[in-house]
Amino acid sequence: MEPARGRLKAKEARATVPLDGPKATEIMSIAHGFFSPLAGFMGSGDVDSVCKDMRLRSGYIWSIPIVFDISEEEIRTRNVKAGDSVLLTYQGQPFAVLELDEIFSYDKAFMAEKVYGTSDTKHPGVKRTLGYKDKFLGGNITLVNPPRINPPFDRYWIPPKVMRQNIAEQGWKRVVAHQTRNVPHTGHEWLMKGAWFASNADAILVSCVVGEKRPGDYIDESIVLTHEALMKAGYFKEGTHLTSILLWDMRYAGPREAVFHAIVRKNLGCTHHMFGRDHAGVGTYYSPYAAHEIFEQIPDLGIGSVLTLEWWYCPVCGEVTYSGLCGHEKQQQAFSGTLIRSIIQDGVKPPRLIFRPEVFDLVMETGEKYGFGSPFVTDNYLAGRNPVITVPPMEV
Amino acid sequence: MEPARGRLKAKEARATVPLDGPKATEIMSIAHGFFSPLAGFMGSGDVDSVCKDMRLRSGYIWSIPIVFDISEEEIRTRNVKAGDSVLLTYQGQPFAVLELDEIFSYDKAFMAEKVYGTSDTKHPGVKRTLGYKDKFLGGNITLVNPPRINPPFDRYWIPPKVMRQNIAEQGWKRVVAHQTRNVPHTGHEWLMKGAWFASNADAILVSCVVGEKRPGDYIDESIVLTHEALMKAGYFKEGTHLTSILLWDMRYAGPREAVFHAIVRKNLGCTHHMFGRDHAGVGTYYSPYAAHEIFEQIPDLGIGSVLTLEWWYCPVCGEVTYSGLCGHEKQQQAFSGTLIRSIIQDGVKPPRLIFRPEVFDLVMETGEKYGFGSPFVTDNYLAGRNPVITVPPMEV
Repeated sequence: MEPARGRLKAKEARATVPLDGPKATEIMSIAHGFFSPLAGFMGSGDVDSVCKDMRLRSGYIWSIPIVFDISEEEIRTRNVKAGDSVLLTYQGQPFAVLELDEIFSYDKAFMAEKVYGTSDTKHPGVKRTLGYKDKFLGGNITLVNPPRINPPFDRYWIPPKVMRQNIAEQGWKRVVAHQTRNVPHTGHEWLMKGAWFASNADAILVSCVVGEKRPGDYIDESIVLTHEALMKAGYFKEGTHLTSILLWDMRYAGPREAVFHAIVRKNLGCTHHMFGRDHAGVGTYYSPYAAHEIFEQIPDLGIGSVLTLEWWYCPVCGEVTYSGLCGHEKQQQAFSGTLIRSIIQDGVKPPRLIFRPEVFDLVMETGEKYGFGSPFVTDNYLAGRNPVITVPPMEV
Repeated sequence: MEPARGRLKAKEARATVPLDGPKATEIMSIAHGFFSPLAGFMGSGDVDSVCKDMRLRSGYIWSIPIVFDISEEEIRTRNVKAGDSVLLTYQGQPFAVLELDEIFSYDKAFMAEKVYGTSDTKHPGVKRTLGYKDKFLGGNITLVNPPRINPPFDRYWIPPKVMRQNIAEQGWKRVVAHQTRNVPHTGHEWLMKGAWFASNADAILVSCVVGEKRPGDYIDESIVLTHEALMKAGYFKEGTHLTSILLWDMRYAGPREAVFHAIVRKNLGCTHHMFGRDHAGVGTYYSPYAAHEIFEQIPDLGIGSVLTLEWWYCPVCGEVTYSGLCGHEKQQQAFSGTLIRSIIQDGVKPPRLIFRPEVFDLVMETGEKYGFGSPFVTDNYLAGRNPVITVPPMEV
């Protein structure tokens, strides 16, 4: 699925449509095989089948519509027609070509309700879906001008084909995926270690979701670099742990998003996927183990799931222990993201059993270097961060 | 397999043979189904088949001969004849009846070489085998006068039939066995926890081998009580951990003994068995992972094996970590039995991350109560310990 870089001939594409960032990164994921078997944006048949049955028309499990929304006005003014090739531009440069099969409408409220299980507009996924423009373009895409992945992300951009080669070369038979949008504390570290045991894995693939951020999130640079630092500092042995990125805007679709994560990590060569409490959820829309429950309904997914409860710091045990085994429920100290965040904001190094000093130092360093002085997303970061991808100039 | 207690009629048994302790406890294990499918002491055919092929003549995997050795003089003076019922007495009381099928000889040096993979007489198992008297009695046994299991062991005597009921009542689908002759430090604790993960077990069955002791071993009372204390003190959650005993004299047969342990724990209802480094080995007779290797050769054993490396205390991680995951090989502090022993002998409470305080206190307490002032086996203990089983008076 390595995209071919080719000279684009003007006559090939009749209409030109500029992309926003989310669509550009979805095209990257499609073109590089992260979203296999998808080869483009979904047509109405697949969208409908995914919404209603959580499968593509082919029967392949797929949980989240991958759609290209566009306004009727843009279709008209840009002369977009089914059957044509459409040139998609990004950052003012030619980027990809869409072989446009179909221009269609779909009931966005119905889509939101099916995918998210709620029509509450406070749900960020529902809000995103309802915010789609009125029409959708369906068709296969070809990346014609592959962008540069900018540092520090370039080293972690390992598309499925390359990842599967890496896995084979390392001799890994079983790899368990850890989905993350967090800088790791020791609770996360032990979630990964526990899942490694439970899946009898050779290695853990940390797959950091890099995409749309909200103020208060950790910045992507801190997340990616600190996960690798855990291994570099020996908390994971070399050869048992690899950090990579996935370009994706979280939808917070709970169980449906869990299924999506599993499909993408299967494409990356993982044999197992970890799911913790409230995986990919938000608010109280999903039951804490909804991701676990949905997996039991789809045994043909082709990737094992590792269901993990919580790890907490137990002062009686004197260490991080598993909620499924530790009997000191009353004494346990759950890892509070809020607490750890406040510790980091105060700049006070937490105990090594809660937060690794190497991770702490790197959080501070990356906050300075990439985050305008903070490892947490701010308006400054959102406005001024270095883009993850840069499309090189290309003559048409 | 619950042995029936019956009145013994004098005419039923023609000869009477007194038992030593090891044979009495093996009869207990046979009669209660720990050694199923064995229903008695092996005849020459099974002994030969076990030595040569590690299977009973029936094809069932069995790794260690279970034999009744006797001198030619005793056979003569006690009028022991094949075809007869022989009354076996213990502690001066009728205990069991042997339906004597066969009196036979077997090459003890050959047996030792086959079972232990060495003929070195310094190997305690070889020494034991070569020390057998010249003849063997084969035949099924019936326990006619079930003994009392004395405190503190009585609560932990859970024969297979009862254990399987317990397991069913608890709703445990998967149970992993931990074989032990040690008071647990946190390295053992994490071996169990890691195996629990790796086998996706509902519970860990701690199966303490109670039997022949050597000076310097932990006393049986300390072993059994401290394992249960780990659970009572919350280091294992209630419902995930159960302590029991197995009456057995360790043979130190390495891989063959690992297979034996697995068979017995399968009989107890376990679905998995843990094997660590140098399982049931002694000295340097076996490669560290010989137990692991032998398991790959016998997929029909009917119980899964969980192969565990070492857990060590890592000062960088600040906790007990797994050698397969922790990259701080240079800083690691292996749990040295010798070190922990010396700490206990000094009576200085070790750090909670090395040795649980509740376990430490109980080691001291049980040493006072059962060990003549020491939790380690001494000549006083060997001479004066309370017997594990007591055979009640019975009229013949």
